[in-house]
Parts: sequence; structure tokens; C-alpha cells
Amino acid sequence: MAISKPTANGNTHAEVAPVELDASKVIINLADELKPLAAPETLKFGETKTDHMLIVHYDPVHGWGAPEIKPYGPLTLDPMSSCFQYCPNVFEGMKAYLGPNGEARLFRPMLNMERLVRSADRVALPPFDHNQLLILIKRLIQVDSRWIPGLPGYSLYIRPTIIGTRPALGVTASDSACIFVVLSPAGPYFSAGAKGISLLAVGESVRSWPGGTGGHKLGLNYAPGFQPQRIAAKQGYDQILWLLGDDEKVTEVGAMNFFLAAKRDDGDVDLITPPLDGTILPGLTRASTIALAQAHTTGRITLPGVPGSTKLHMHERPLTMSEIASLFDQGKVLEAFGVGTAVIVAPVGRIGWKGRDFVFPVYKEALGPIGKGMWNMITDIQTEKVEFDGWSVVCS
Amino acid sequence: MAISKPTANGNTHAEVAPVELDASKVIINLADELKPLAAPETLKFGETKTDHMLIVHYDPVHGWGAPEIKPYGPLTLDPMSSCFQYCPNVFEGMKAYLGPNGEARLFRPMLNMERLVRSADRVALPPFDHNQLLILIKRLIQVDSRWIPGLPGYSLYIRPTIIGTRPALGVTASDSACIFVVLSPAGPYFSAGAKGISLLAVGESVRSWPGGTGGHKLGLNYAPGFQPQRIAAKQGYDQILWLLGDDEKVTEVGAMNFFLAAKRDDGDVDLITPPLDGTILPGLTRASTIALAQAHTTGRITLPGVPGSTKLHMHERPLTMSEIASLFDQGKVLEAFGVGTAVIVAPVGRIGWKGRDFVFPVYKEALGPIGKGMWNMITDIQTEKVEFDGWSVVCS
Repeated sequence: MAISKPTANGNTHAEVAPVELDASKVIINLADELKPLAAPETLKFGETKTDHMLIVHYDPVHGWGAPEIKPYGPLTLDPMSSCFQYCPNVFEGMKAYLGPNGEARLFRPMLNMERLVRSADRVALPPFDHNQLLILIKRLIQVDSRWIPGLPGYSLYIRPTIIGTRPALGVTASDSACIFVVLSPAGPYFSAGAKGISLLAVGESVRSWPGGTGGHKLGLNYAPGFQPQRIAAKQGYDQILWLLGDDEKVTEVGAMNFFLAAKRDDGDVDLITPPLDGTILPGLTRASTIALAQAHTTGRITLPGVPGSTKLHMHERPLTMSEIASLFDQGKVLEAFGVGTAVIVAPVGRIGWKGRDFVFPVYKEALGPIGKGMWNMITDIQTEKVEFDGWSVVCS
Repeated sequence: MAISKPTANGNTHAEVAPVELDASKVIINLADELKPLAAPETLKFGETKTDHMLIVHYDPVHGWGAPEIKPYGPLTLDPMSSCFQYCPNVFEGMKAYLGPNGEARLFRPMLNMERLVRSADRVALPPFDHNQLLILIKRLIQVDSRWIPGLPGYSLYIRPTIIGTRPALGVTASDSACIFVVLSPAGPYFSAGAKGISLLAVGESVRSWPGGTGGHKLGLNYAPGFQPQRIAAKQGYDQILWLLGDDEKVTEVGAMNFFLAAKRDDGDVDLITPPLDGTILPGLTRASTIALAQAHTTGRITLPGVPGSTKLHMHERPLTMSEIASLFDQGKVLEAFGVGTAVIVAPVGRIGWKGRDFVFPVYKEALGPIGKGMWNMITDIQTEKVEFDGWSVVCS
């Protein structure tokens, strides 16, 4: 978009304002040959690639270029690119589901788009119109809709990514960028069967910190967890329960938000999750879990398998390991689970802390009644078996 | 390297151990046509690319492949690659200089190699033999030695990088990787002329924290600084002075280590830099500055322009903003500077903190006598005008 405007000395000359992201400019180049669909039972999370991808480039002179939907293929980048050197890379996790009429559906996608805008801003990537990006994502899903598995618990995982592509080594914000979106059909995230995940509570390695980036979905929040995760695995634990501070506050579990359900003296249930203080990822599934717990308590919905008379008192507040230990010692712990887009709801089986193992009650399908009810309700809403506040959105 | 060894049932079969990085396998493909050399005065840091690069790939089946020195060119990577998604990317900054006989020289390169090994381990990248990598880097510099500028203060910047290339979305350590090394001729880092850099002391955004990754040279430590840096620039400051904790300890300045020189009552000088507590990058120039300050004090060397009778009492200890303010109020502050491979020594002109500007004494060439003496001594050692403990190493 070239704007002519008067300069200070009264002359006019062409000033170039960066071009906005514009979905209507999309160029669609379809693959000559489509890949065979993978058998659902062979799917490993994030390993299967569909036929197409979306890509859009930004440079400081031209702004956002024409978006392209094209055959899935590699990126070609200067080795000095910011994405390799300084990691201004952000992403989202979304899923597409088949609705009752076989239509492709997304789950609260605008929340992903808004978070992606905030993430990009946090690492000084160029701004973009997220409404246009959502239109483009929907278009990509339509193109690859045959990849959405129809089985319960299955979906098409969507990974919008923005990387900095400034091809120079100066330590400065990337003035060039690339948005790309790839798709991968996914089964249930944890295939371990009916067993809760084991967590090692870790405070020596710290995932996030006040003033840090843990409240944003940045690629750079993840690599620091790889080595601690290996150490936990060697000690026989599936994932890390990240602690923070001298009082060992629980923050997240692996790459999920954490929820603990505890019995109350009045027979109700306290459902506790750490607050969004900047160290916690503001998860969509976290927000949905909180909203559904509240809706259950007000009687607006009933979580399958949870009596309507059982009120879930939702608390977003700090939760320390000492408090969890104390709840265990009082016999008040009911269940704990991690939530996230990839996993939806994952049961916690035990937590190792200071040489002690806190073992959660064992339920038939690993998830306790609240986690299971939440999983069922969320997946029912995602596939539009249940309508709830327009959370499920048709890809059209 | 295929190893046959007996299995438990007594049969032998081929077990493949990953192949080690082996410099003797290097394949050299020279560019058909060489680029014209850039005029030194036109150089912007990290923007000019030389004719060749080094690249080696690792995969979990074959281990390290044959290293290749080839014409500078783009990388081609799956969009799901770990380097874009989770940022297990590490790098080093080194420089090549021309020695008295026109030979290419490196400055303490083994310290870079050892730090690179630690960085790679911190984000669970595959291990490699850093002696072999150094041989390869020397070979690359020989190939592109015509790019080493001969002017004082100029050098050939070397950027060894390792990125995770696992082409799948599961949040796990990258079992594939790529080492590449690129070169860029560089002039003095700060071209602003004889003016100290201005720093905004920032504690709301935190660069690093205990249990974090600030003590390693990871790409992911840098992007979180881009947005705060922009805010500082809008307020008229060149760089950020990163603070940590309620007591506002100084950690680093921009991407440099920080040194403050203060008058003592006995006429000597205290030279203070924050300690390596895991939140501070263990910089080579930092280590060299400390060693040279001590060598000056013991009389082994004399920093140019600093009287041999002026003892520099070197302190690696926490330094808070309150202490700096107090030293200013007592009129004891002599000078401050940032040190790093790219910049060598950069003078600090002022520090903005809580609405107050602490202005450092103004010296003719911006650097105060200690910073200037250090800059001269380090560059003299780098170019082997002065020999010191074998710090300058011939590329052979």
C-alpha cells in the first residue's frame, strides 16, 4: 500500500507503508499427487505431515506478501536468520475436528489468534491481522480436510508458527518474518493406556520467572526443559512438575497447565490451578476447564459422571508443594490432571518430591471423575455434540 | 562406526554407534566465483557474508556426517524442525585476526569450543568432539582468509551455530542436529564515535534467573530482550542494563558483561563485575578482562595508559543499583564498560534508573583509561603484538 502524503517541506512523495496480511490474496498451488492417509492407530503425535501448508513472508519494505497454500515442503533460509540465532519464534497449537455433519470445526480459534498476536509482540515480530490469518487457516484446513480423522479422541493438529527471518547477526529485533501453518493428524496424545502420568517436581531448573516469558507461547520456553525432562525420565518419571520460588509453587506440568481436585469438609470439591501471574501459559484448555467447572457448579451444564450436586469450587491461586503434601496427609486429594490442546486432559498418577512419592487415587480409566467428565465435555463441545457458547466454530 | 558385539543370546549382529564428528572427512567444495570484498568502512556488524560456510549434519542413525565446506548458501529445513518450534539452538561468537606475518589467528578458541559443548548439552543437543570442530573452523578460515580485514579494530567474525533439526512436533529433545559456521567481516561494533552508550536499568523484564539458562550461550536468551530493547530505545537509551531480584542486582548490559571501576580511599581502583552464579554469561572477554586486571595489579603487564602504580582490585561479586547510586553520590565512580567478543570493550556513558540519570565521567575517546587500556591490551594480544599465555592461536 503506497501512501502519498505531504512532507514537511510541502512536497509529496511516495511513502511506503507495509502491506497488511490479506487473506484475499491467497495463492493456492495444490499438490500434483496426494499422500495416502496414515492408518489412525499408527499415528504418533506431530510426525505425520499432510499434503499442504500455508506460508506468508514479511519484509520491512513490502510488508506481508501474498499468502500461499502449497504442497508441504521445506523452508529455505539464510543461515544467519534470526530464527536460528536469537529465536524470535512463536507458535500456536490448535485442532480441527469433524462435526455432526462431517464439517471441519475449530475450537475457540480466536483465542489462539489473540495469543499469537501477543506472543509475536513479546519477541518484537511484525504485527499481523489475526482475523486474516484465521481465514487462511480455515482455507488450509478445507484444502486438507480429508486428513481430519473421524475417530473419537482423534483430530487434525494445527501448528501456526511465526519465525524471525532477518538474515544478519546483529542482536536486534527481526524486521523480517515468516508465518507458516502445518497440519498433522493426531490420536490421543498419551497412548500409554489407562495409567496416570508420573511427575517429578523440580525446582532447581526453573521453567519461568516473574519478568520472563512463561506467560507467552514462545518456542524458546521449551528447549530449556529438554535436559531436565531427560533427567526425570532417567529417574522413572514421565514429565516434570515445574516449581518456582523458595515456597515451591507449582507452575506447569510438562507443557500443560495443572489442576488439583481436593475434597472439602462440606462434601464439595476445590479445584485449584495456579493463577496467570506471567509465569503460567494462559492455556485455552485451562480457560475452558475453568469455565466448564463454573458452569457445572452453577448448574448450567453437568459434567458427565460428576453429580450435579457436587459443586466444583474453582480457585485460581498459588499452590505450593507443601500444600499438596498437606492435602495428601489429610486424605483430601481426589485427583490431579494436566490440560492442554494436544492432550486435552491427562491424568496424574503420582508426584515425586523430596524423595517421597505422592500417589493419586487410581481410577478405572486413569482419569478421575472430574478429569474424565471434563475430557468428555470438552471433546463433545469440540465436535459439536454439545453446543456451548459458540466455542466450536465451523471452518467456512 | 559399526560395532559388532555379542548380544545376550550369544549371536553377533551389527550395532550402529553414532559416528563421531571427524574433521578428516571434510569435503571442500569451493565457490566457482568469489565475491568482491566489501570496503571496510561500509561494513555493518553481521551483515556481510563471505564466500564459504561449514556445515555438518547429525541424525540418530548415522551420527555426524561428513563435514562440508561449501559456498555460502541457505539451509533447507522441514517446517516442523525443532529449531523453529522449540529453539534448541546454540551459538558462539569468535573472531579471526591477522597476525604480524599476515597469518590468521584466533583468540582463546578452546574456551569457545568448551562453552559450545556446555550450551549444546543444556538444550539436549547431540554431543560432538569440539577439538574436531575447531580444526574445521580453522580450515574454513583458511579458505576464506582473504576476508580478514587488516585494519586496527577490524576482524573476521565467526559464528558457529548448532540447531535442532528433528522434523516433528512432539515436545522432546531434538535427536537430529546441524552444526554450521558462517563468517562475517566486522569493523568496530559501535560506530557511534567517541560517545559512551546509554543504559536503561530494567528490572520488570528479566533476562535470566536462578535455575534458568542465562549462564549458557543459547539463542533463546536473546529474543526476550528485543521488546524491552525497543522500549529503552524509545526512551532514548542505547541498551538495557538487566537487573535481577528485589535488590536489583546488575547482571548484564545488552549482550555484554558489565564492569564498574570505582576509586578506593587508598588511591587504588576497585573493578567490579557480577559473579558467574548461573544468571551471567561466562564471557571470554569477561574472563580475559579479569585476568588482565589481575596481571596489571601483580605487575606482570601494564595496561597501556594505566599507571603501573594504580592497582586494580578485581571483584567478582553482586553489584546492586543502590550500590552504584551510592558510589555516584560519594563521587567514587571512575568508569564502566561492557565487554564481549563483538564489541571487545564498550564505554558506558550513563545509566537511567528510577527516573534518575547517572552520568559517567567523560573521557576523550569515550572509554576511560581502564577500559581503553583493556581494549588496547586485548586487541594487541589478539593480533599477537603482545604475547600473553598463548591466548592468540594460529589457524593452521
